[in-house]
Amino acid sequence: MKIKYTLLKEDKDTHARLGKIETNYGTVDTPMFMPVGTRGSVKGLSPEQVKECHSGVILANTYHLWLRPGEDIVAHCGGLHKFMNYNGPILTDCGGYQVFSLVKNKKDITEEGVKFKSHIDGKELLLTPEKSIEIQNKLDSDIAMSFDECPPASASYEYLKNSVERTLRWAERSKKAHKNPNQSLFGIIQGGPIEELRKLSATETVKMDFDGYSIGGVANDGESKEDMYKAIDYSIPYIPENKARYLMGVGEPLDILEGVERGIDMFDCVLPTRIARHGQAFTRDGKIHISNAKYKEDLSPVEEGCDCYCCKNYSRAYIRHLITVGESFGGSLLSIHNIRFLIRLTEEIREAIKEDRFLDYKREFLNRYEKKK
Amino acid sequence: MKIKYTLLKEDKDTHARLGKIETNYGTVDTPMFMPVGTRGSVKGLSPEQVKECHSGVILANTYHLWLRPGEDIVAHCGGLHKFMNYNGPILTDCGGYQVFSLVKNKKDITEEGVKFKSHIDGKELLLTPEKSIEIQNKLDSDIAMSFDECPPASASYEYLKNSVERTLRWAERSKKAHKNPNQSLFGIIQGGPIEELRKLSATETVKMDFDGYSIGGVANDGESKEDMYKAIDYSIPYIPENKARYLMGVGEPLDILEGVERGIDMFDCVLPTRIARHGQAFTRDGKIHISNAKYKEDLSPVEEGCDCYCCKNYSRAYIRHLITVGESFGGSLLSIHNIRFLIRLTEEIREAIKEDRFLDYKREFLNRYEKKK
Repeated sequence: MKIKYTLLKEDKDTHARLGKIETNYGTVDTPMFMPVGTRGSVKGLSPEQVKECHSGVILANTYHLWLRPGEDIVAHCGGLHKFMNYNGPILTDCGGYQVFSLVKNKKDITEEGVKFKSHIDGKELLLTPEKSIEIQNKLDSDIAMSFDECPPASASYEYLKNSVERTLRWAERSKKAHKNPNQSLFGIIQGGPIEELRKLSATETVKMDFDGYSIGGVANDGESKEDMYKAIDYSIPYIPENKARYLMGVGEPLDILEGVERGIDMFDCVLPTRIARHGQAFTRDGKIHISNAKYKEDLSPVEEGCDCYCCKNYSRAYIRHLITVGESFGGSLLSIHNIRFLIRLTEEIREAIKEDRFLDYKREFLNRYEKKK
Repeated sequence: MKIKYTLLKEDKDTHARLGKIETNYGTVDTPMFMPVGTRGSVKGLSPEQVKECHSGVILANTYHLWLRPGEDIVAHCGGLHKFMNYNGPILTDCGGYQVFSLVKNKKDITEEGVKFKSHIDGKELLLTPEKSIEIQNKLDSDIAMSFDECPPASASYEYLKNSVERTLRWAERSKKAHKNPNQSLFGIIQGGPIEELRKLSATETVKMDFDGYSIGGVANDGESKEDMYKAIDYSIPYIPENKARYLMGVGEPLDILEGVERGIDMFDCVLPTRIARHGQAFTRDGKIHISNAKYKEDLSPVEEGCDCYCCKNYSRAYIRHLITVGESFGGSLLSIHNIRFLIRLTEEIREAIKEDRFLDYKREFLNRYEKKK
């Protein structure tokens, strides 16, 4: 079955919206945050621990799973759900983001696809729209992405325009190549911070009638927040309201709030697990570094009032100790907290939209979160 | 409350025995295997995951917790159980094993204690019987160890004799220094593979009336299995049967079986978690290296018939993938399996003793385990 997005309520003041997505693995509420399990594992956590954070959809990366263990092995093991023992919806990206970061020479980007060298053994590989979709079909995720070009943040107008046009042709090829009836396919809207290009990309992609739409090119190194907001603002008006909208690679609390305000339903980011492994935790009062000496004897939880497994059972002093001595369980505990933090944020956002107080909620959250940073 | 060991049944053919130990955190059956949480965390696992392996007692290392975070911080956090959120019995070693491995000059071992340099910052430190006990009192483990000298496997008779005599004086000082009424104190029997010295050490240690007895000096680098078995055989006859007997640092399946046969009740070892992180797993047919290419597409669990979380939910192919790409969850899964493997071994040993077929069980297990090695 394909996913089905239902719009439940629109905010009275903004483009924020409450919705739900029915999937083969249950119904999830939107706006939502999706944890990332790059190589078939949300780093340091069991699927049960991920679910305990009230996670709905999780992500896996096509590029990484293509290289190791290979899509055929995942298929042989019964697809990603069975392979990684995750009994919930899974979304895969198209591999473009990783592959474009490996391209050394512009000549390696052709109409056919992208040539690049594997980050593991340097082997020359080619990723095309057809190949990306074939891999995702075999991985058997619930939601797949069409293959897009990810231009650098510094790209010129000319470059971006050519790139948008090629991405449209690749989207058609992706759609044509897609064969898995239990997998939904999202189209990706590109065009940098340029209104005209986002409009072109959005209207033409929507014409192809995908199962949902992603806004890409907003999580590049060097991308400014202003450009991210423009990218959303210039794309959203052209996406039909009965389809889910996914802002790729975004997960800072501020950006989730800004994204929701602009009409985004889905977010993902490696941030909560990555910063956790380095001893950083989200709190209502901003991020904290748990290795700071001031937490040495701190009996309080990472965040007072948080309902996560980490905060219910462990002190800052213990987690500081684990992080300081390099015990991986410290990173796992903070990962649980950080994922739960972003998921709670989206739960509260949904409550606020329901009660027509989204902007109040956003202001209050940010006043407190940004103050102590 | 102090622990209480009760002998339930002796094997008809060997010194193997079935027993139970009542602790402040519930009753545990013996013979038993105790997983190691060196620095206040069984590496890569949550306390719930450790308990799911049917673990009873777990270990923590005094030396490591003394250096970081420091015993006062653990005490401030309510003791080790609360600090690490482990609601089961905890045993601490005395720190001797680690400290003696850091001694560079024999002159640094004096009657007072041992001078050595911290492995973290090179700071010169002194560990004495009084200090070791004070640290363990503050850590508030259920079972503490008296402070002993750990001579190298290559030590001469003269060296061993002096060492045994000093360890006896240190045992008296340890006993005198011990102040925690909720903590039991074990005496440690040393003496290498020399019958006369083990007898001296055992009889004199037992005279001091400890809550249990450990057999030390058997897990050094370079120690032969023959010497380990001698050390046990020469010590056991002098330990009263109403006290638990703990073989320190031993965890190979063969050695557990040999130890039980000789009258040992308690075992601990970092082996199951250490080899797990390197992709090795125990099976009934010997150890396997999961990264071996032959497991690439292997849909079977690590060990057919195993009831652990890892074997019930994951394929060899998935775990091989995680280990190959360096995802820490792979090591966690194999750690769960390996700990459960050793605990199941002790469960089966207890059943076999109960049914008067210990030697048959041992022979059958080893026939299969050693054949494919």
